[in-house]
Amino acid sequence: MNHRAVNLQQKFSLFREQWQPKVIAQMNDYQFKLVRIEGEFIWHDHPETDETFIVLEGTLRIDFDDGSVRLGAGEMYVIPKAVRHKPCAEGEVKLMLIEPRGTLNTGHEGGERTAPGDVWI
Amino acid sequence: MNHRAVNLQQKFSLFREQWQPKVIAQMNDYQFKLVRIEGEFIWHDHPETDETFIVLEGTLRIDFDDGSVRLGAGEMYVIPKAVRHKPCAEGEVKLMLIEPRGTLNTGHEGGERTAPGDVWI
Repeated sequence: MNHRAVNLQQKFSLFREQWQPKVIAQMNDYQFKLVRIEGEFIWHDHPETDETFIVLEGTLRIDFDDGSVRLGAGEMYVIPKAVRHKPCAEGEVKLMLIEPRGTLNTGHEGGERTAPGDVWI
Repeated sequence: MNHRAVNLQQKFSLFREQWQPKVIAQMNDYQFKLVRIEGEFIWHDHPETDETFIVLEGTLRIDFDDGSVRLGAGEMYVIPKAVRHKPCAEGEVKLMLIEPRGTLNTGHEGGERTAPGDVWI
């Protein structure tokens, strides 16, 4: 068996595009994804699952119907399932997402901001 | 609803003891745990689940029956279920573990190294 560490910065060096999550590891049926984001995303929710955000670089604001949270590098937040949210990054943010395989970035909203799922890097 | 970021370093500042994982967040039935470790652990496996290690500080070696992997800060590894492993940290390592709620640090081995589960910080 080939035992190789997954280096987060090395994985980020492999792509520059924003809003296109890349899968870097899988634990049972959950996937770890890296994504670069900048600017506002759309309001959406994930009716079936919580979703974890870990900020690796930059500052991310996540808006909710009843407030917001700011995450800097080394900070995380678990968005409860079915809670409407809108990520907003002023500069570029490097982010790790953890969620069940098959979770789409736009939830059930669809539309042009929907990224392909299950793209490994 | 109270929206608060979970800051990993702030959470680490709340405890000094080693080998005692602390839960900092939960996503569905999975928990995020922080732990300080130093020295060798025991050989064990988790028959029912994969387990994720993310190193935040220090260098961790994980031994397997057929080799080993070294993880530095910003590196991660998913240990497949039922794969025997032994973590070994030369200096202190600050680690994040992600695994299903109820997963014990020693798997089914038990013994004096088994830490209480589900301790939140």
